[in-house]
Amino acid sequence: MAKGQKDNQFVKEIADMSADFPQWYTDVVLKTQLVDYGPVKGTMVIRPYGYEIWERIQEELNRRFKETGHKNAYFPMLIPYSYLVKEADHVEGFAPEVALVTHIGDTPLEEQLVVRPTSETIICSMYSKWVQSYRDLPVLINQWANVVRWEKTTRPFLRTSEFLWQEGHTLHRTEEEAREETLKMLEVYREFMQNVLAIDVLTGVKTEKEKFAGAVDTYSMEAMMLDGKSLQAGTSHYLGQNFASAFEIKYLDSDGQLKNPYQTSWGVSTRLIGALIMAHGDQRGLKLPPRVAPIQVVIVPVAFHKEGVLEKARETAERLKAAGVRVELDDRDQSPGWKFNEWEMKGVPVRIEIGPRDIENGQAVAVRRDTHEKSFLALDTLAESITALLDDVHENMFRQSHEFLHSHIDVCADMTEMKESLDKGHFVKTTWCGSRECEDRIKTEYSATARVLPFDRTAVGDRCVCCGKHLGEEERAKGGTVYFAKSY
Amino acid sequence: MAKGQKDNQFVKEIADMSADFPQWYTDVVLKTQLVDYGPVKGTMVIRPYGYEIWERIQEELNRRFKETGHKNAYFPMLIPYSYLVKEADHVEGFAPEVALVTHIGDTPLEEQLVVRPTSETIICSMYSKWVQSYRDLPVLINQWANVVRWEKTTRPFLRTSEFLWQEGHTLHRTEEEAREETLKMLEVYREFMQNVLAIDVLTGVKTEKEKFAGAVDTYSMEAMMLDGKSLQAGTSHYLGQNFASAFEIKYLDSDGQLKNPYQTSWGVSTRLIGALIMAHGDQRGLKLPPRVAPIQVVIVPVAFHKEGVLEKARETAERLKAAGVRVELDDRDQSPGWKFNEWEMKGVPVRIEIGPRDIENGQAVAVRRDTHEKSFLALDTLAESITALLDDVHENMFRQSHEFLHSHIDVCADMTEMKESLDKGHFVKTTWCGSRECEDRIKTEYSATARVLPFDRTAVGDRCVCCGKHLGEEERAKGGTVYFAKSY
Repeated sequence: MAKGQKDNQFVKEIADMSADFPQWYTDVVLKTQLVDYGPVKGTMVIRPYGYEIWERIQEELNRRFKETGHKNAYFPMLIPYSYLVKEADHVEGFAPEVALVTHIGDTPLEEQLVVRPTSETIICSMYSKWVQSYRDLPVLINQWANVVRWEKTTRPFLRTSEFLWQEGHTLHRTEEEAREETLKMLEVYREFMQNVLAIDVLTGVKTEKEKFAGAVDTYSMEAMMLDGKSLQAGTSHYLGQNFASAFEIKYLDSDGQLKNPYQTSWGVSTRLIGALIMAHGDQRGLKLPPRVAPIQVVIVPVAFHKEGVLEKARETAERLKAAGVRVELDDRDQSPGWKFNEWEMKGVPVRIEIGPRDIENGQAVAVRRDTHEKSFLALDTLAESITALLDDVHENMFRQSHEFLHSHIDVCADMTEMKESLDKGHFVKTTWCGSRECEDRIKTEYSATARVLPFDRTAVGDRCVCCGKHLGEEERAKGGTVYFAKSY
Repeated sequence: MAKGQKDNQFVKEIADMSADFPQWYTDVVLKTQLVDYGPVKGTMVIRPYGYEIWERIQEELNRRFKETGHKNAYFPMLIPYSYLVKEADHVEGFAPEVALVTHIGDTPLEEQLVVRPTSETIICSMYSKWVQSYRDLPVLINQWANVVRWEKTTRPFLRTSEFLWQEGHTLHRTEEEAREETLKMLEVYREFMQNVLAIDVLTGVKTEKEKFAGAVDTYSMEAMMLDGKSLQAGTSHYLGQNFASAFEIKYLDSDGQLKNPYQTSWGVSTRLIGALIMAHGDQRGLKLPPRVAPIQVVIVPVAFHKEGVLEKARETAERLKAAGVRVELDDRDQSPGWKFNEWEMKGVPVRIEIGPRDIENGQAVAVRRDTHEKSFLALDTLAESITALLDDVHENMFRQSHEFLHSHIDVCADMTEMKESLDKGHFVKTTWCGSRECEDRIKTEYSATARVLPFDRTAVGDRCVCCGKHLGEEERAKGGTVYFAKSY
């Protein structure tokens, strides 16, 4: 246990992360008041401290979506059941877990309504009205919304009956353009994960088994949590003409032919909050990436009943605020030590301490949450130093995430090696023949799934990790290099 | 018909607003692509141009909510039916119009769930967990969410089965503090209506008949639409201890006693978009208030195939954008006249025309949407002039709204006068004995309802407009000066 932690009541209340990671997660999300359980099974209440993270995520993503030409819109949540059925794979994937509205008050509805689990169907029904000519393409629309998917096992942020997300839905004239959009949005997500959430990810395409119900291809970014499990953090789907044809979206092309456009959809959700907790936390609690932290800097005045201390702390807070830093002054009547521990638990990236001696010396003490390093900063130039410090915290957190990920990937040649690596909580990079049988067997025996087939198809072997079959042309086309891991 | 409109195809496609105001409204919202009908009865799709207005509204309100100490959170949409029943008036008001989730896939739920029509019940259930001590008060939380209320007659933005809104839910230690909060948020709304949407409003308290199901007092702001009908644009409720007691929210006060806190809730919705259309529009279409207009300035290059014109137009757009103006350059291959008409229909506050002659003279032509006034502005200082012009457009639109409202209010002494005024599409300021009988009779005979009892209780008569009874102390306390109007 690190210095200064022996009297830390907060740490005592959080389960040991190396012994019981799931309990550590639950303790952290509840005690930091990010979230609470809702009254209905599997639902969550996102409390202000958690919701502010979501607001920052929305802000950052909205900017990127708008820069890439997308506009937001809002489609109805209640979808006629008959719509869900129009795309065969889609209904098969979603029907068992949809919430059905059957009555208004005491009166039964003529047609049952589905609470959207995702909005392809209702959006396509509107697109079929709106799109007439090739001049109406591309359509580049995003929606921020709540969706409902009734899951058997639920955990706050990671898998809840209702969650918040964004879903982009685009239409294009050509397959090429739609495929380009699919990859462009995956790249937007990747850049956001690294530069905002400070989390490194693996990207690639999903297997047939793991892809979205109704997609031609699903691309995903996978993040490694501190327990070595993978979390699917965002997906981008190339839908081809599957939905466009089912919903009769047709446009008159310049050659006078009626054609179906090509479609994409892509989304990330409040699950990202779970990702950043499990990618960055430690035994003291949260470690929030500065760019989404609701409070980036907390100022704790030391000996604040002494003349001038509180005034100086307030003045410092105002100056940081004016410089665009999200700052909070903690002037509660508690000991500094208690406050330090509480703000560490809440994951605030930088703590500033100001006491009478500091004021005399024209400085403040800054303590980083990521490294616990202390530095003395001149009060005169504090805003500049703090901005630089926050960037440095971000860079360091990303570097740690990057190193953790890449030091926890093993290249495995057979099932024995694979088991060893998975047991250690590592990702497995290996060779797969592309057969569903092998994929299923690995899931059944090791509870691991194919996460992605990476874009870099460089071979790491020539035999399937599972069946041992030598990979020919056909197998390489369907399988080849792949990451397997246990996952959330 | 105004000059230059004879060839305006857009105007031809919009119903005459003086002859058929409802059809004018429908034509305008559909043709400007603010909204479309969803597939399920009474639902709407908010299209990008409409949603951008909502985003501006959210941004402006969020800033005001945060400045007054509120934080956002998110509560589950699905509420156990048993919760709805806990507050007697509340269930009576909402039960007939709630959407009920009864099944997940094929499996019936043990307890039916209500899709939130409003969130008092589920939020109170959480507050009862979170609030223990007087130190936990006040609780100042707001939520942005979708709600569902199944309405018989629906119209886009004004009354839809699903709509978007914000709902503030606060808890306080004393009645005084809760009442202060109720009025503070009404005032936030009023200031927002005037300074952002450029709409003048009447504020005051609702009658017992018109108040929110479960409230002690409902305060409202009422806006006058161009057809003389009133639109309830936002409400702020003092809930007393009604919900706190039903949901057993209790805190230990400093005197060692367990007490129920006092509560408020307040909300505005996507209905505000309907309000601004019907408060400002004209025969040419929308007239958007500059502070929420998705596009504040459109630049239409004239003779743009001539050398230098498009370049200058682009450069001007960039400079305005850099100055924080929401600007669009219309470089489509259409005639300037066609573009002028389209952007007028879409309500863009200022149009800038740039042609070869203008460039020679170092100027551009600016045309205001509100007054159709033309002015020549120097290109060098365009950003400053445009910013000032947009403010001026706002001020003028607000002045017009203010004058329209106050010139359409008649003080009436009896039912005959009242009928005449209502038939002219005016609001009626009058005297009411406070009895439900008179309020009901006015509704039955004239389809008019009591909108608000204004804060200024100055008498405008001493007999009830309906029963003619002389108002004594008791009647003045229950009724007195009141506004009646037809309403949305």
